[in-house]
Amino acid sequence: FCALSPPPSCVTHGRAMDARLAALRALMVEHGIQAYLVPSEDAHGSEYVCLCDQRRGWLSGFTGSAGTAVVVAEGPALLWTDGRYFTQAEQQLDAAQWELMRMYEPGVPQVEQWLGKHCSGMVVGLDPALWSAHRIRQWEALLEPQGVSLRPIPGNLVDAIWQERPVVPRNPVKAHPLRFAGEGVSSKLERLRDGLVREGCGAIALEALDQVAWTLNLRGSDIACNPVFFGFLLVTTDSAHLFLGRGSAPDIPPDAQLSPEALQQLAEASVDVLPYGSWAVMLPTLLQDAAARARDHAARSCRIMLENGRCSLATRQAAESTPGWSVHEVDASPPENFKAIKNDCEIEGIRQAALRDSAALVDFICWLENAIRSGEHVDEVSAAATVRETREHYSKEYFVGESFETIAASGPNSAIIHYKAEESSKRDLKPNEMFLLDSGAQYIDGTTDVTRTFFFGSEPSSEQRRCYTRVLQGHIALAQAVVPEGIPGIMLDTFARSALWKDCLAYGHGTSHGIGAYLNVHEGPFGIGGGNHSGKTIKGNPRMLDVYMSPVMPGMFLSNEPGFYQVDAWGMRIESDMVASALPASADNKKWMRFETVTKVPMAKNLIDVSLLSENELTWINDYHQEVLSKIQPLLLNEAASVWLREACSPIEVA
Amino acid sequence: FCALSPPPSCVTHGRAMDARLAALRALMVEHGIQAYLVPSEDAHGSEYVCLCDQRRGWLSGFTGSAGTAVVVAEGPALLWTDGRYFTQAEQQLDAAQWELMRMYEPGVPQVEQWLGKHCSGMVVGLDPALWSAHRIRQWEALLEPQGVSLRPIPGNLVDAIWQERPVVPRNPVKAHPLRFAGEGVSSKLERLRDGLVREGCGAIALEALDQVAWTLNLRGSDIACNPVFFGFLLVTTDSAHLFLGRGSAPDIPPDAQLSPEALQQLAEASVDVLPYGSWAVMLPTLLQDAAARARDHAARSCRIMLENGRCSLATRQAAESTPGWSVHEVDASPPENFKAIKNDCEIEGIRQAALRDSAALVDFICWLENAIRSGEHVDEVSAAATVRETREHYSKEYFVGESFETIAASGPNSAIIHYKAEESSKRDLKPNEMFLLDSGAQYIDGTTDVTRTFFFGSEPSSEQRRCYTRVLQGHIALAQAVVPEGIPGIMLDTFARSALWKDCLAYGHGTSHGIGAYLNVHEGPFGIGGGNHSGKTIKGNPRMLDVYMSPVMPGMFLSNEPGFYQVDAWGMRIESDMVASALPASADNKKWMRFETVTKVPMAKNLIDVSLLSENELTWINDYHQEVLSKIQPLLLNEAASVWLREACSPIEVA
Repeated sequence: FCALSPPPSCVTHGRAMDARLAALRALMVEHGIQAYLVPSEDAHGSEYVCLCDQRRGWLSGFTGSAGTAVVVAEGPALLWTDGRYFTQAEQQLDAAQWELMRMYEPGVPQVEQWLGKHCSGMVVGLDPALWSAHRIRQWEALLEPQGVSLRPIPGNLVDAIWQERPVVPRNPVKAHPLRFAGEGVSSKLERLRDGLVREGCGAIALEALDQVAWTLNLRGSDIACNPVFFGFLLVTTDSAHLFLGRGSAPDIPPDAQLSPEALQQLAEASVDVLPYGSWAVMLPTLLQDAAARARDHAARSCRIMLENGRCSLATRQAAESTPGWSVHEVDASPPENFKAIKNDCEIEGIRQAALRDSAALVDFICWLENAIRSGEHVDEVSAAATVRETREHYSKEYFVGESFETIAASGPNSAIIHYKAEESSKRDLKPNEMFLLDSGAQYIDGTTDVTRTFFFGSEPSSEQRRCYTRVLQGHIALAQAVVPEGIPGIMLDTFARSALWKDCLAYGHGTSHGIGAYLNVHEGPFGIGGGNHSGKTIKGNPRMLDVYMSPVMPGMFLSNEPGFYQVDAWGMRIESDMVASALPASADNKKWMRFETVTKVPMAKNLIDVSLLSENELTWINDYHQEVLSKIQPLLLNEAASVWLREACSPIEVA
Repeated sequence: FCALSPPPSCVTHGRAMDARLAALRALMVEHGIQAYLVPSEDAHGSEYVCLCDQRRGWLSGFTGSAGTAVVVAEGPALLWTDGRYFTQAEQQLDAAQWELMRMYEPGVPQVEQWLGKHCSGMVVGLDPALWSAHRIRQWEALLEPQGVSLRPIPGNLVDAIWQERPVVPRNPVKAHPLRFAGEGVSSKLERLRDGLVREGCGAIALEALDQVAWTLNLRGSDIACNPVFFGFLLVTTDSAHLFLGRGSAPDIPPDAQLSPEALQQLAEASVDVLPYGSWAVMLPTLLQDAAARARDHAARSCRIMLENGRCSLATRQAAESTPGWSVHEVDASPPENFKAIKNDCEIEGIRQAALRDSAALVDFICWLENAIRSGEHVDEVSAAATVRETREHYSKEYFVGESFETIAASGPNSAIIHYKAEESSKRDLKPNEMFLLDSGAQYIDGTTDVTRTFFFGSEPSSEQRRCYTRVLQGHIALAQAVVPEGIPGIMLDTFARSALWKDCLAYGHGTSHGIGAYLNVHEGPFGIGGGNHSGKTIKGNPRMLDVYMSPVMPGMFLSNEPGFYQVDAWGMRIESDMVASALPASADNKKWMRFETVTKVPMAKNLIDVSLLSENELTWINDYHQEVLSKIQPLLLNEAASVWLREACSPIEVA
């Protein structure tokens, strides 16, 4: 899980918020549009965006990571978000000005359906740099017959009215050394170029920041918790250009952000650096140059590959304006697919990072349990700070920072799936309340994302124990599943949910996301999920279909995180990270795989109702705890934690 | 499972087959085409077709129910079929003339991919009445840029060279009485018309034979095992026309096939009858008449709804040629969706039919076991005949016929998923060989489809017992699953396969299909499956995606049939029929459902390895057997069967 919010300074309430909407509406009149679309994403399709790109949050007050705002000339503005954020959005939106659209709930139209129904005869404006070309073309096909006209307006109307907008970050970009990356830039570019040629393409535009960082073995810190930097990358069959230095003055060279090692790495792989702002202008020129160099090649190499989900309308328009070039759309670019399959070196780094991370968590949980039982004051904010300190202490120079903002949620807050503790509203931790901790870190050898739920008092209710056990059974079913190579994520989702379903219990989020190797904590192209939607909803949602139907392959690194949430009361989630690994082929030559759980943090034994467990599940838990003990105990830096871990990992006996 | 083959008379070998290909190629030259496409389907998109429509079977010699032939001017002709039929196709195709294309195997292109690669610059002919408009338009979009031109040729080139083609059947059409249908024709037409208006349509063309039969509460017997008749149905908001009498002489009135009750039923619902052959000609006229009557309505009612999968290119061209009318494509027509959800009356009929059917099977299995153990001669063909007789004996006037050709497969034949015993090659049943029986019947109150696998000898191998137990565990997991209403079939597939997957075992067919209520034994719009394909394959196959992502809803009637096949040695499958039924909504207002297994036939206890079972699974088996005994024993017509059933249903004790 990830939850990233702007600091409170960005968001305000009451009149100031009304003024923002009024200013935008005035600008809409100037442009002759009757509605304006404000997405969450930045110009790179990022899920988490830096402060200066949090336009939807600044405008609406809603700071969740996912949501789309539609501002119309008359009547309330609308904000679409999904089940993870219903509670938060209700609290943050001013109901007098904003209407919350609960995505995927029965009877709630999707954005484009709403536009078709309510905006007939209107012109709807949008920023072509922030919207995917693929989506806008689909919407156009749907909306044009309904009399709705979509108009791309270069420049952003929210930016134009945003006074005191935070500055664009331009942090140092460092080399990600070969001993962690496991593959050099030249080799990655060679694989990418092979992929282009195989698909009859002569170039590719990469806009997703993690794809750019992975391809070039570079890491930055322009977006909190995500070790990426603002850049576009154009790769042709014989050239590569990185566009760097977003928002910098014209007299600053575009490679000013790069460390000496990073510069050297790019030079060795023949990657040139150009100014970020020239991306859309230079794209046609560079493509024409490439075509001129390749004139003796087959004509069909004048196709540029663009990724449906990430390619912005602005980039697509630039590519399409290039004489002689055409566009080849793909669901996932070669780097998106390559980076999902970790190499042996990355997997070893991931294992090591997970061990140190687990040791830190064990140390923290031991400290927390003792603190709470002995009546020390700990609140959600201080708990999150201590987790971070403990991680840094255990990983020293390997530690870079958090991989997302920690969710430390106590009591009823634990039922808010993407809870973020604020100084103003934080809750104290108490022995007889549920405590959910979802946190992770960026290490130079790997990324982590772990959730454990605890009840430090002596008497969790039988309902709490039943639900925790159902969640745990789902977690175990997925952790020990043996499945065919290439299984779509949606089929894996059944493993995680079926124990809860037995008791007619459900959770409103996905079960698993891909995780980067010292990269974004959420990455594609696959995901495990779908079970919280009807088949009809998924069929009607190309993005869900694409993610949940994507094959899961050996080498992929992913989370395993079923949960359950009793609204206004308590919530629980169990999340470990896993690597998919190949099994020997069976006699009929079919390929199989299973998962290796790299996270080694014990479960809450006092929340387990042993009577619900099968023999096999009980064995899994005891084996897992045995493994945790043997791997983590040697890494612990204090004796109390060691004592605590021995107890936490002692076998559960059947009564 | 269904396997329907033409009688041997239709298919021959050697020179006669070569002559057929040669004659077709000569005709291709006359029409100026370099390739010709021959599908399995008739003009109604039927899965199982009558003899005169088995063009692909007649031409190629391959008689499986699914497959597409492509005949090119030079080089071998090609035949695509799926995993169920690889073995059969290898045996039936003349390898000197035909190349088998194993669908969904790695590296095997789909038909349209192959055409794109090998037919550049060619004209590819096809019969517009036999191909879905939706598919051909998709192929055109793909193939045109590759220089392949698709040409619809009215009339069928195979028919033109088919000497001694069997006559078109025109059997009596009877009324399906209200006491079984549970809903009258007028009510069905009203629901259909409401559905059209909701989608902004003024008409619908129904071509699928089971949709026509369901809507009009009529049943026929034009296609073996499927109680349907050849007919098209056009319904507008204020009229309905049935096109009947395929292939009849002009002087025969189109309603000649209809029984007096059927005639009365149609008259009461204001359904007019027109000649079958005038379908494409009359369609534009009737649509224009409807538009003239409705001139005061909104203009958008001049849309005709057509089902993507079933609407033929010929019908679509006729609709599109109608001035003022446009086409609205849907994945599944309202009748396709309506008929999948059985009403209470249909469900009660299904239960009763399943009980009588189960009693007949119990009687048969008891007889068979005794016969084989006492050394009587029984072969696959005589076993199938006896099953049929026993069913008729148990259901008397309710019995109509088989719902598909019985698969009675002994020893290595049981590993052929769609095996069909022939007099010339049939095998004797032996005590120490596996025997798989997949059979079903049409009763006027319901349809059945049941598979059981037996080993009448005393010592099945430990591998056979392990595999049977894994199949049974999958069957149980699906049978007792509690799931959210509307879950896509692909997520249910995990339940059926995960026990086999534990041992890296797989089966190459779907897990479940919808079943009609005294209608086709295979019906849509959903299916449980996907687990035998990679996510990539399913994503690339719109039909699979459509079927496996369709929501499963309460009231649906479906099979539960995992299996396992050790090629050339033995195979096993366990199939019961189930009704999905709603559970009370949970506290959070979510809707849930589970399955009721209506088939009551015991499992093979000597094939179960009890050591692999969980306590829960063992309880399920013992409870199921207890239920079988209490429901079936009272229906048995002989004492020996009663004794046998008591033993077969005695509880399994844990050692």
